[in-house]
This record gives sequence, C-alpha cells and structure tokens, in this order.
Amino acid sequence: MLELEGSVMEYKQRLAGLNGRSVMITGGLGLIGSSLAKRLINLGCDVLLVDSLNENFGGNLFNIEQVRDRVRVNISDIRDKHGLRFLIRNKEYIFNLAGQTSHADSMSAPFEDLEINCQAQLSLVEACREFNPGARIIFASTRQIYGRPRSLPVDESHPLVPVDVNGINKIAGENYHLLYHSVYGLQTTVLRLTNTYGPGMRIKDPRQIFMGIWVRRLLEGQAFEVWGGRQRRDFTFVDDAADAFLAAAVTPETIGKALNIGGSETLSIEALAEVLIRVNGDGTFERREFPAERRRIDIGDYWTDDSLFRRLTGWQPQVSVEKGVGRTIDFYRAHLKHYL
Amino acid sequence: MLELEGSVMEYKQRLAGLNGRSVMITGGLGLIGSSLAKRLINLGCDVLLVDSLNENFGGNLFNIEQVRDRVRVNISDIRDKHGLRFLIRNKEYIFNLAGQTSHADSMSAPFEDLEINCQAQLSLVEACREFNPGARIIFASTRQIYGRPRSLPVDESHPLVPVDVNGINKIAGENYHLLYHSVYGLQTTVLRLTNTYGPGMRIKDPRQIFMGIWVRRLLEGQAFEVWGGRQRRDFTFVDDAADAFLAAAVTPETIGKALNIGGSETLSIEALAEVLIRVNGDGTFERREFPAERRRIDIGDYWTDDSLFRRLTGWQPQVSVEKGVGRTIDFYRAHLKHYL
Repeated sequence: MLELEGSVMEYKQRLAGLNGRSVMITGGLGLIGSSLAKRLINLGCDVLLVDSLNENFGGNLFNIEQVRDRVRVNISDIRDKHGLRFLIRNKEYIFNLAGQTSHADSMSAPFEDLEINCQAQLSLVEACREFNPGARIIFASTRQIYGRPRSLPVDESHPLVPVDVNGINKIAGENYHLLYHSVYGLQTTVLRLTNTYGPGMRIKDPRQIFMGIWVRRLLEGQAFEVWGGRQRRDFTFVDDAADAFLAAAVTPETIGKALNIGGSETLSIEALAEVLIRVNGDGTFERREFPAERRRIDIGDYWTDDSLFRRLTGWQPQVSVEKGVGRTIDFYRAHLKHYL
Repeated sequence: MLELEGSVMEYKQRLAGLNGRSVMITGGLGLIGSSLAKRLINLGCDVLLVDSLNENFGGNLFNIEQVRDRVRVNISDIRDKHGLRFLIRNKEYIFNLAGQTSHADSMSAPFEDLEINCQAQLSLVEACREFNPGARIIFASTRQIYGRPRSLPVDESHPLVPVDVNGINKIAGENYHLLYHSVYGLQTTVLRLTNTYGPGMRIKDPRQIFMGIWVRRLLEGQAFEVWGGRQRRDFTFVDDAADAFLAAAVTPETIGKALNIGGSETLSIEALAEVLIRVNGDGTFERREFPAERRRIDIGDYWTDDSLFRRLTGWQPQVSVEKGVGRTIDFYRAHLKHYL
C-alpha cells in the first residue's frame, strides 16, 4: 500500500496503535463501513456499528456475517439526535459514513437528504463538541459536490457547483466538520469519494452505485442498461476505500482537511460494462440515452486528482478495475440471495 | 443611479413595468425589506410582507409606519412550510430576504440557523417549483460565505470557506436557489450582500450589524465599543441595497447567477466610528480586542468586487458613508423609542 519500505513499516506501527481502541462507524453495515469494520476488528479495535438499515440505503447485515460475534451493532438513524448524543461518547475514532447517497432520490425527496446529509451531520459534530471533543472523526463526502468538472482531473481547489440537492447538502455536511475543527478544535478529516464498488454494495437498484444493478442483471442472465456510456469515470474498490479511511485516521496531517480519494484507473462507463461481461464470461448490455430528469443532474466526465491524499498518507489504490470486478462478481455469485 | 442617460430611460421603463404586479417580501419588516417595500408600493405594486417579528431578528412594524395602509402584512415564520406553500402562490416577484443574520447566534444556536437559512429556503424553492414556477425570485445571501478573504477585493469566483455556521447554511440556501434554476427553470437570482445599514436597522444589540448598537449608544450619550478597529470593510446604505434588489428583479441577465453587492467606499471600522462621532457632533468610543469566541469567526478585512452586477444592471451605490450615517443618526434621533 505504500511506496517506500520505511514508510510501510511506520504505517504498520501506526495501525498497530489502533489495538484496543474504541471505534464507532456510522453507516457501519454499508459497503465501505463493513469493510472498514473487518479491518478494525482485525487490528484489535472495539467496534460499534451504527446503521439505520433504511431499506433504501446501503446497509445489509450480511455484510458483517463473518464477524457478527466480534462487533456490536446499534440499529438507529443518525437523525436520532438523542441517541447520537449517547452513542458518540467515549469513542476514540468515529468513522462517519452514514448518508443518503442517491442523486435521484435527493431530487425527489430533498428534505430527507437535507435531514441526513446536513442536519444530522451538524448534530454529530455538535454532540462531539459537547461530549467528546477529543475524538478523531473521518467524514465520508463525495465528488458530487464539484458538479460538472471544469477541468480534469479534479483536485480539491475545483469550484463547488453541485448539480443536485445531494451535492448541496454534502457541502454543508463537510463544512460543519471542517468548521468544528477550525473553531472548536475537533479532530476532523473529510474524504471526498468517487464511485466506490465491490462486495457488499447495494445491487437491488442503482441507488448506491449504477454498477450494483449491472451486477444483479448480469447474474440473473439479463441485459443491463448503460446510460450514456462515453462518460469517463474513476472507480475505487471497496477495500482501497476502507484503507483510505484507516490511512486518514492514523495520519494527523489530514486533520482539518478535505481530501479527494480516487481510483486505480479511469475508463468510460461503456468500457467498464465490457469488463463486467468479459470477467463474467458472458452477458449483454444495452446503451440508452439518459432520461431527461437524469441528464440534468449527470456530471459527465469525472476523474480525481488525489495526489494530496497520497502524498500525506502514502495510500494508493491496490486493486485494478479488472481484479475488483472479478472479486465483486465472484462474491455476488456466491451470495446473491442476501442482496435481492 | 445609472451611468448612461439612455440606460436610465430604459431602466425607468422597466421599473414602470412593475406597476400592478403582485409581490411578496420575506423579511419584509426588516431593514432592506421595508425599504424595498416602500419603493415597490410607489411603483404601484400589490405588496405582501411576510415576517416572523422574531424578537432576535430585524423586523420592526415601525419600519412601515408611513405605508401601513398601503401594504398587507402576514406575520409568519418561513419555517412554517405549510403557510409558505400558500403564501407564495400567484406572486409574480418574491424577494426572499428572511434570514438569521447573527454570526454569533449561528454558533450558539446552530440548528435554528440551519432551520431558517437552509431548510426553510429549500421549502421556499420547493413550494415555488410546485405551485409557482414562473415567479421571479431574488434571494438575499451574504459575503459571510467567502470566509476570510484570500485576496481583495472579493469577486464571485473567490473560494467559499465559511468561518461560521451562518456562512455554511447560507451557501446551502443560495445553492438551492441556483439549482432550482438550472434543473427546474425557476427564475432565481442570488445577491451576496456586505454590511448594510441605515434607518430601520436593529439597534438593540449588534445581532444584525455592529453599527446598530453604536448608533444606540451614541444617541444615549454613552461610549460605544469598537472591536479590533483596523479591519477594513465596505458598507451599503439601505436604499442602495433596496435599489440593487429592484435592479436585479428587472434585469433578466441576472437570472441563475449569484452576484456581489458592495458599497460606495471602503474604510476601517475605526474610521467609520469616527464618521459617526463627527456626524453626530459628539460622542466617544473605546477600542477593544475581540473576545476569543468572536475573533475565531471574524473575517478580518473584506471589501467587495461587484463589477459584474454593476455591468449587468447599471446599478451603483448613490449614498456615501458620510451621508448615509447622517441620515441614519437623524432617523434614530427622531424615532429612537421605537427601536429599543
């Protein structure tokens, strides 16, 4: 994971320092949260997963099947301000991954997006200010805040011109985290994620990531739909994303910063579809034009400049799209019924 | 008000076109809202003022004393989503000025700021999308969204790095307005105001503008406090600010844009204090260091580059600080009891 041998040693020591620490993950039953949970458990942490299991979101108890007896689970929505004020106490690390992630849903249900991505985030940092000001807090933000890229790749200085309600509320959510660092000294870091995929993602529908429904259709022997197709994107395999959260948590230089997290490579959506079919051995897809209500909130080409995060932490993605898609398809072939 | 004679004629024609139009002003009993109301009444508009008369905010019935029988007043809070859905109907122009403006209060009561500056703004644009998509909407934002200037003067491309909860929520508030233009075609304009002052401002305390409490102390024969003092700012006289809202409303080129509104000149806070004393004939002030909790949310020097708005509309400030302060002191000398 790190480029230099010396750094690898130092980084492993830092991770070893997490042994015995008390950790909370909001959105802990989701794609990244559950992958991160397994890493933290293996590092010897005392892990509490908080998740609403909202039927429209990414949480799934099967995601922690292998570690079910080594972790505590608290089913609650981060909009429950009162519960949150208790749950955050005495946690040394808070990985704040709970969110409403669907761009389309943020337009059809904008107040729900506001409550979760904006109001509940303010509740969390307010609760920490009051009851746990020393916690290390890592917040999951999104590249959606940049809107349509004005130049590529997109680094953190790119203007924030969101194209949907989700982007607007996520800007507020990350700003609360950064402000509570600069004003109250909370130890916060914001990670701006791009398309993250892998075993554990929602595949019922495209609410979490469009690739989810592709995998489902492929394994059910049906053609999947590719909207547009020429737009280039980058993709982060879930384990690389989870490693980025760990790397941020043990790197004090990331405190008070909002940092991009990218993927191993960029490719067009259509090229990605071809990778899925090749890895799966067969399958077909149909190209479709974007429906009007989706075109107006689509961001077109996007890929990340995450050089600042790589420089600060030594992190870099380890899993190619080809390998990541392979592991994903293998996983859902074995466990499809738990995700339908 | 406009530099070129031909433009003046054209602009007057556009204003004349407001005759008979149905207009709503949220925050209509406040400093700018009430000044704008008088202009609109004189132009022949049918004016509804919506104001909560929240005791911590800027609304004051005395602000419309002269026009009380020529305007309708609806006392309600814009957080009342249900009332708002009715009130916005059939309005051709909506001047959306209601807001929580105190930076300090946004830190001590961040959820109230969120409800007013963020959630209620989403309610307003959602209601317009559903029931009045053709309305012309002008939203009052603030220079507070820029945070501490990285370069001066500050134009609209300056990064948004807010230093308080108010700045964060106002970014969301203006983004909802701009997004509902780009996605749904609402006819929105955002004006980013700097320090606005004049007859009608709150003078009980510095919640709306620090100059308010200065004027009160001066007229009560007491020394007023100047915090810091060297920081340079620009100041907009209330009538100039109201004219900016009118100019935006009748200039279609401002639709879908966020535009800075500045003042006639820039001066240090201390120099402003000296203007007040000179204009008043006597008085004293004491310089004080910022209290710690205020220093960390103070933005230091700030002045506006509003050349884009001036170019689009022909607007420019008419009232010097010297004259504006004179009119302000005269007003409060005559009407002090209505503002204590």
